[in-house]
Amino acid sequence: MYKIGVIGLGLIGGSMAIDLKRRKFADRIFGVEAEPVNAAAALKMGIADEITDLETCVGNSDIVIIAIPAEPALKVLQQVLDHMEAGTGKVVMDVCSTKEMLAKNVHYHPMRKRYVATHPMAGTEYSGPWAAMPGLFDGRACIISDSVESDPKAVRLVEELYLTLNMRTIYMNSSNHDVHAAYVSHISHITSFALALTVLEKEKNEKHIFDLASGGFSSTVRLAKSNPDMWTPIFSQNRDNILQVMDTYMEKIKSFRDAIADYDESRIRSLIEEANRIKKIIV
Amino acid sequence: MYKIGVIGLGLIGGSMAIDLKRRKFADRIFGVEAEPVNAAAALKMGIADEITDLETCVGNSDIVIIAIPAEPALKVLQQVLDHMEAGTGKVVMDVCSTKEMLAKNVHYHPMRKRYVATHPMAGTEYSGPWAAMPGLFDGRACIISDSVESDPKAVRLVEELYLTLNMRTIYMNSSNHDVHAAYVSHISHITSFALALTVLEKEKNEKHIFDLASGGFSSTVRLAKSNPDMWTPIFSQNRDNILQVMDTYMEKIKSFRDAIADYDESRIRSLIEEANRIKKIIV
Repeated sequence: MYKIGVIGLGLIGGSMAIDLKRRKFADRIFGVEAEPVNAAAALKMGIADEITDLETCVGNSDIVIIAIPAEPALKVLQQVLDHMEAGTGKVVMDVCSTKEMLAKNVHYHPMRKRYVATHPMAGTEYSGPWAAMPGLFDGRACIISDSVESDPKAVRLVEELYLTLNMRTIYMNSSNHDVHAAYVSHISHITSFALALTVLEKEKNEKHIFDLASGGFSSTVRLAKSNPDMWTPIFSQNRDNILQVMDTYMEKIKSFRDAIADYDESRIRSLIEEANRIKKIIV
Repeated sequence: MYKIGVIGLGLIGGSMAIDLKRRKFADRIFGVEAEPVNAAAALKMGIADEITDLETCVGNSDIVIIAIPAEPALKVLQQVLDHMEAGTGKVVMDVCSTKEMLAKNVHYHPMRKRYVATHPMAGTEYSGPWAAMPGLFDGRACIISDSVESDPKAVRLVEELYLTLNMRTIYMNSSNHDVHAAYVSHISHITSFALALTVLEKEKNEKHIFDLASGGFSSTVRLAKSNPDMWTPIFSQNRDNILQVMDTYMEKIKSFRDAIADYDESRIRSLIEEANRIKKIIV
């Protein structure tokens, strides 16, 4: 069993801590948490065994998991690598939704090989240690990016960790990761945020509009509850890919708008039929 | 107990038939179904007791439910009213997602008072009798529109039917209904269709992009599986309201695009925080 450091005891870090301990991969969790309330709650909920500062966490842990938003992660990853000593077997991994900027940032760090870049594709729209849950990662995909830049033994240890979490590992470079993530994750958050803003604006004058909201609306707008601390740096760090996806998306919206404006039912129908192809792909 | 005619044995008509019979509101279901396969399946599944033509259905039923797409519903509602005789206690109701055009279409029909316009706000992205299920309507809202145009006894009978389905009834005129439906239902279908089209276009070159799709993406794109027969006439009949909502939506998307393009993190954050207000409204 390993000693695991978890920097950021939120939804992702907390859920990892729970399953790694339950499944006997970890025997002790050292938590680092900037928010005192979250730290106290994580201790009380048994997510972490103790709360430490960053240096102590790195000193005590075999594997350090950085599970904080992508902006502070840039600095914290450097600090963790700075605290590692030559010849160490320790490994640091992050779980951020953007990978390229983080990769560039430590590319020349002398301890770069101790770092394994990962993105477990799982989550909910909630955050904080109270959102953590067992089984969050079971059966989902996890991307390991730029694995050639890491020590093979470090990669194997991280693979073992994700095997414990029942995740399928997929390998790609950080630049490809960021393109893919823009399509299958980042854009759907933007469409949800924009949908929420649209309906909330109307609601200012129509107090009862949400009495009517159906399950379909709730499902589509669910991601609009997501945390700004997490999503602001993602949109910023993955700017170029997201702008490209947004431009395609706006063209598709525009196609619908034109077809509807023209009462062009055959065009509306063919757009819907084309979109229906998603049935073969998403269960 | 009543004899119920169900024109259109799909998700909505089929689910109504199931619960109305289980809950002893109906003792016999007369189904009218244009698709032979669907008709045979509905009989075999026990959703309808017999399949009849439209005239027989109206002749045998106390209440006729029109549960077909909004385009054929225009004609079928007229035909059902044409088959009703003066002095009858029979009632016809529809369940379409657009109400104003249907209302205008029969406004001067001599049997107008036998018609009650309704929109049960429940459903799934699936269609056909095989998508029908018990409990679909429990706890959801149902709009009854233009009820002043209907005979009060007819309205009460329909209210009794929806009480059996455990729905909350909300009253508004058909024009207000169509505005509200554009915001809380129709726009979220368009955003899902457009999202599906965006990602499917990328997928032409990236075969494995969907390996990475997370639960958030699936939730946001779920409605893109919806049936073109149902949605094409909705977008056409509710054109003006939908175009107005789409214009607001495109402005919101544009706000995000501009903030991201400018690396304006404080603007991105404030847009997300504003969208987060949806938390107080949608559970």
